[in-house]
Amino acid sequence: MIDTATETGLYARIQHFYAHQMQALDGGRFEEYALTFTETGTFQHSPSVEPVRGRAAIVAELVRFHERFADDPVQRRHWFNHIALTPQADGSVRATVYALVLTVRPGRREPEVAPSCVMHDVLEADGDGIRTRSRSIAHDHLG
Amino acid sequence: MIDTATETGLYARIQHFYAHQMQALDGGRFEEYALTFTETGTFQHSPSVEPVRGRAAIVAELVRFHERFADDPVQRRHWFNHIALTPQADGSVRATVYALVLTVRPGRREPEVAPSCVMHDVLEADGDGIRTRSRSIAHDHLG
Amino acid sequence: MIDTATETGLYARIQHFYAHQMQALDGGRFEEYALTFTETGTFQHSPSVEPVRGRAAIVAELVRFHERFADDPVQRRHWFNHIALTPQADGSVRATVYALVLTVRPGRREPEVAPSCVMHDVLEADGDGIRTRSRSIAHDHLG
Repeated sequence: MIDTATETGLYARIQHFYAHQMQALDGGRFEEYALTFTETGTFQHSPSVEPVRGRAAIVAELVRFHERFADDPVQRRHWFNHIALTPQADGSVRATVYALVLTVRPGRREPEVAPSCVMHDVLEADGDGIRTRSRSIAHDHLG
Repeated sequence: MIDTATETGLYARIQHFYAHQMQALDGGRFEEYALTFTETGTFQHSPSVEPVRGRAAIVAELVRFHERFADDPVQRRHWFNHIALTPQADGSVRATVYALVLTVRPGRREPEVAPSCVMHDVLEADGDGIRTRSRSIAHDHLG
Repeated sequence: MIDTATETGLYARIQHFYAHQMQALDGGRFEEYALTFTETGTFQHSPSVEPVRGRAAIVAELVRFHERFADDPVQRRHWFNHIALTPQADGSVRATVYALVLTVRPGRREPEVAPSCVMHDVLEADGDGIRTRSRSIAHDHLG
């Protein structure tokens, strides 16, 4: 197998892209997170909700989702592992990635470690950087 | 320290190799997993079993191991971290890698997070790709 | 965004550096760990202690910290995720990294998974390798 993604440096670029993208999300910088999607990018945050399209809608969805934590301040950390890439015919790249959510509550040393997920992204890469064209999340415990 | 592995792009190739290899294992695609080993590759799945040699034996060992889950459907996810490489005199590469097993049961949001392991691989790389020549796993709680 | 770190291979070099550095720490090889810092490197091991400066002081701090485990043998594993780099004007690189500590006790299969941290490093890279100029750790549960 010729691994174009690692030959061109794309693999490291995607790893680094995810690092900044997810630190923006976990830091509550939703506008910055939305800017990591293409202009018409879609985001399906969890299997039980419909995907939203476009950066404004992504921000609105994140604000809505985080309202549940309004009286319950938490620090969430999204961990990724095993980024597996498949090039697509149109030049985009499909990424299948393990994801695990850690939720930390103030004063409580042990985070909640759940759920275990698989993230399905389509990524666009150009000289300017990487963007997420679409993202959907599957939860392992929901089969 | 001159880090040949990262200079040649080998480090990213190995990361990407592991991503595909472990998604094959966790997806129950044992034939595909076995093909990521060399033809005479050895696999010691856990410290309490003898290593097996060759792809057919690797598949048989995985089928045998998973029989215990026949009535207990689980989704396992093997996470890796800190891939440390040491080049060997014969051109192969020794990889020492942290590994953590997550076991998810249907309907149960919180995975079991155990055991914590260290994986010892010898890898062969050529223009064609990466293959595992040998793999053994040490469990931290067994010293 | 032009991603210099991945274009030059620095991103993979830093990942590989961390793999060796943290396996040294978790393996109790404190002298080897201290050598991964610059000569006047600083290390703030946790938010509740003052930073120490220089390799001898780093070793002393680690010995002191591990005295608490003298009668309680544990295997700790520091996991990292989402290494986000920001180049600095002086040629160094700021790294913001998720970190999670796993503590394994003999005979007990399930590790303790805590605390969830963010590590703030300043790294120096030259032809010779990577070194940590400064490191401080923030614990998520302490806000």
